[in-house]
Amino acid sequence: MNKDSIKVIPLGGLGEIGKNITAIEYNNEIIIIDCGISFPDEDMYGVDLVIPDIRYLLDKKDKVKGMFLTHGHEDHIGAIPYILKQLNIPVYGTKLTIGLVENKLKEHDLLNHVDLNPVKAGQSIKLENMKIEFIRMTHSIADACGLAIHTPLGIILHTGDFKIDYTPIDGRMTDLNRIATLGKKGVLLLMADSTNVERSGHSISEKTIGETLNRIFTNAKGRIIVATFASNIHRMQQIVNASVMQNRKVVFSGRSMENISQVAMELGYLHIPTEYIVDIDDISKYPNNEITIITTGSQGEPMAGLSRIAYGSHRKIIIEPDDFFIISASPIPGNDKLVSRVINQLFKKGVDVIYEDLEEIHVSGHAYQEELKLIHSLVKPKYFMPVHGEYRHLKHHKDLAIKLGMKPQNVFTLETGQVLEITNEGVNANKRVHTGVIFVDGLGVGDVGNIVLRDRRDLAKDGMVTIVVAINRDSYSIVAGPDVITRGFIYAREAEDLINKIKEVSKEEIEKCLEQEILEWQILKTNIKRSIEQLLYHKTKRRPIVFPIIMEV
Amino acid sequence: MNKDSIKVIPLGGLGEIGKNITAIEYNNEIIIIDCGISFPDEDMYGVDLVIPDIRYLLDKKDKVKGMFLTHGHEDHIGAIPYILKQLNIPVYGTKLTIGLVENKLKEHDLLNHVDLNPVKAGQSIKLENMKIEFIRMTHSIADACGLAIHTPLGIILHTGDFKIDYTPIDGRMTDLNRIATLGKKGVLLLMADSTNVERSGHSISEKTIGETLNRIFTNAKGRIIVATFASNIHRMQQIVNASVMQNRKVVFSGRSMENISQVAMELGYLHIPTEYIVDIDDISKYPNNEITIITTGSQGEPMAGLSRIAYGSHRKIIIEPDDFFIISASPIPGNDKLVSRVINQLFKKGVDVIYEDLEEIHVSGHAYQEELKLIHSLVKPKYFMPVHGEYRHLKHHKDLAIKLGMKPQNVFTLETGQVLEITNEGVNANKRVHTGVIFVDGLGVGDVGNIVLRDRRDLAKDGMVTIVVAINRDSYSIVAGPDVITRGFIYAREAEDLINKIKEVSKEEIEKCLEQEILEWQILKTNIKRSIEQLLYHKTKRRPIVFPIIMEV
Repeated sequence: MNKDSIKVIPLGGLGEIGKNITAIEYNNEIIIIDCGISFPDEDMYGVDLVIPDIRYLLDKKDKVKGMFLTHGHEDHIGAIPYILKQLNIPVYGTKLTIGLVENKLKEHDLLNHVDLNPVKAGQSIKLENMKIEFIRMTHSIADACGLAIHTPLGIILHTGDFKIDYTPIDGRMTDLNRIATLGKKGVLLLMADSTNVERSGHSISEKTIGETLNRIFTNAKGRIIVATFASNIHRMQQIVNASVMQNRKVVFSGRSMENISQVAMELGYLHIPTEYIVDIDDISKYPNNEITIITTGSQGEPMAGLSRIAYGSHRKIIIEPDDFFIISASPIPGNDKLVSRVINQLFKKGVDVIYEDLEEIHVSGHAYQEELKLIHSLVKPKYFMPVHGEYRHLKHHKDLAIKLGMKPQNVFTLETGQVLEITNEGVNANKRVHTGVIFVDGLGVGDVGNIVLRDRRDLAKDGMVTIVVAINRDSYSIVAGPDVITRGFIYAREAEDLINKIKEVSKEEIEKCLEQEILEWQILKTNIKRSIEQLLYHKTKRRPIVFPIIMEV
Repeated sequence: MNKDSIKVIPLGGLGEIGKNITAIEYNNEIIIIDCGISFPDEDMYGVDLVIPDIRYLLDKKDKVKGMFLTHGHEDHIGAIPYILKQLNIPVYGTKLTIGLVENKLKEHDLLNHVDLNPVKAGQSIKLENMKIEFIRMTHSIADACGLAIHTPLGIILHTGDFKIDYTPIDGRMTDLNRIATLGKKGVLLLMADSTNVERSGHSISEKTIGETLNRIFTNAKGRIIVATFASNIHRMQQIVNASVMQNRKVVFSGRSMENISQVAMELGYLHIPTEYIVDIDDISKYPNNEITIITTGSQGEPMAGLSRIAYGSHRKIIIEPDDFFIISASPIPGNDKLVSRVINQLFKKGVDVIYEDLEEIHVSGHAYQEELKLIHSLVKPKYFMPVHGEYRHLKHHKDLAIKLGMKPQNVFTLETGQVLEITNEGVNANKRVHTGVIFVDGLGVGDVGNIVLRDRRDLAKDGMVTIVVAINRDSYSIVAGPDVITRGFIYAREAEDLINKIKEVSKEEIEKCLEQEILEWQILKTNIKRSIEQLLYHKTKRRPIVFPIIMEV
């Protein structure tokens, strides 16, 4: 008898922030949940994006039946254009999510090659063995869902990213009833968002931001400029509402803000009376106190809208004394300094800025402890696997589940690549599959790896010193050079002595080799490199990359 | 009549975090308050430290009478060894502060060349015209002081870094009585710490940490490893107290932890019964539940104690299953990810970690809004100048002063280099002096500047491509090459086509020049550089630094 088995295979997103992608494999059927990017760490110099390595899926191409998306954030859909090039499968998601994917595929010239399927919350997609049900969730983007994967072995409930907001902006609450029903029916495995498990209590409703905005808007004398996440359509809607209430027209600034607001309006997720939408070029036709600008750059990104405005490099928006700025976002870890820099710059320009440290101007989209407890209590799963978070979050989510009564042996904190296998006979997490990161840098996907990055790090630290010499192989003599070129090491003009010393030492090394008739350039290069590295470390305590180049003439 | 004038000249520390140094100039007398470093921004690749440019003082060497230190944190004393080399003046500070400076000078082999003067809180130093009074303040380092500078024109009160802690560990409270007395006498100018002006309420007493520690220590089964700031001697004392109470010996790990605890013990700021001090090499002589390790690395610094322990690269401390870790510190902005990485790693190793998000295990050393209001209300200065903070903090501190009743025209938010001049006739901030940053990189002080940093940034982003060719000037012909060497750009092995294309395009450019008998290497290099840059951007959307090197043979 062929043993039934479900494998849950996290190909990204566990023990890291971003790059969420999970495969669920039931016998001969595989589905993919989400397909996100992550942003490069600060030591991944020059890398634009990080996407998951899906080699495991490529080896089983025929089994993969579809991709199911929980919501439209970059860390859940950003890698789709790259992955679909390797694995062209149908994609399912709610209308807004699919709209955002379309937008993305358009940019990659892929739109006509892909099978996109909008699904409504509550609807199910039936495959041969598995049935995938979309369940409404609230999150910091509209139209988010969790997924119930019905398999012959039982139900897997994946929350997606969620919070429990009893007063969501669009009125579409987390479908607690359905979750309760599934819980009653019996859930084999719960996979739940761990992002905010370290925060006690209950997250604040998105609606409170509307109240803050209304109050702040009343006091503004000039233009209001709000920076926020382009994907947070509920936030956008609240900014629009506060604007309309104060008779302010709305201007969208920044590529992603323009694109996403356009998609959201077309699909009916963002509602603005037509007469309140103003093109950025027409901004000067209205008095300042009738304008709200919604812009990108809430993370202080130097090339995005807010920074450009602050530093005076925005093509269309020039700061005016009565401008009032609101940063309606939290700095993502690592971005604090960038955000602070923009705030300082705005204050220096003499305008007012409101941000999270001063006012309730942002709420998280992820469940806090009490919300997580609610889900656990409704679902009462047989097995639990915390997802979406660094290891510390997974660990604390495990602790939380155990405190709520789960047996430790039924809770699995896995790492990316580790397989959770459930059969009728039990469960284990012993297998591993190949996973990894692929760097996107410019047009290159995967052509920058650890060696290139190591070189970039070394170059960044102390720069480089190139020594070039031309040697005549027949006469065993130096024909030209050694010449020395440095970049990022030291002011060459002020280090003439050091440069001369480099030439001198190189020359000695070369002559030593030539005298001994060693014409293995590799040996010669190694000798020069070693001597010069020693010299430079001794003189400067720095370690630039040393490149000896020998031209044979 | 010679007009009396006081100039307050911030040479660092305003509109930035760190590098605190202020000159006060009264006619022919200049004093310096503090002399700190700042840590390099993330885009200052390879830079170890940033120190202030004191050109202004060097031009007036004879006038400078002394350096007065408020406390022993790096951002207030770290640049002393570098500055004293340029300007050898007497240094005044409390015993612990001077002890820490001594330690620093020893490392720079400067100890015997410097005039260090320990001063007690309450004591004054009389110069010809100015008198500098040390006033006890509480802060996150022991023996901190504010300074009252008595001048013929009036009193300048500089708070230094401070908080108001009514239950300080050493019992030495902020000298509110003296501050009140000075306020009553009349203070011309108040300069006050702005770090926490965006936080409402009152900071928490250091003593609360002791209570948390006692509770946590009771539950630990194995060794306790606490990471904290080496300079926070009060914290150290509380960790020691909790350890002694539970019959645990104390081990100091990490260079700065060993040094500073040593100095603090010698000078009587840290009290440990001798039998409770254990050398790290003797750690194995005691059962695990009788050991507390106090270590560096609370900021997740990869080379410091905590990270080394977490990643298994510590020479003396190997993680054991019952080890219990406490990170008794906040991540400084920019360090969040590093700290999180260490926490994740510790959890992966299966040990428990407590940190600020989970427990009250750290308090700030800087005054919150209500504490600042107390100082303003006691001092009621004629003029006010917020210090110690980014521009946003100075701005909010100005707002706070105005809310408390000061006239806006009497409050000055200056930037580093801007001079506040007070005379009998009034006050102005119109003058500027030269200030700046000097980078310390390895042994070099000031030999790395903006051009070198720009090159490091460019190299970090997309690496470099070197093209080298040997040309015979007489025959107008290529003798060897072009050869191509890349680093940090692309996997050369996988990009053979591209490398060949670079050679080909370079060759074309060279031959074009040689045919036209253009032997100005600069023109030739510029042509190669431009063509290759275009080629690479077109093919890869990257911009490595392109170096053409021409050897003339």
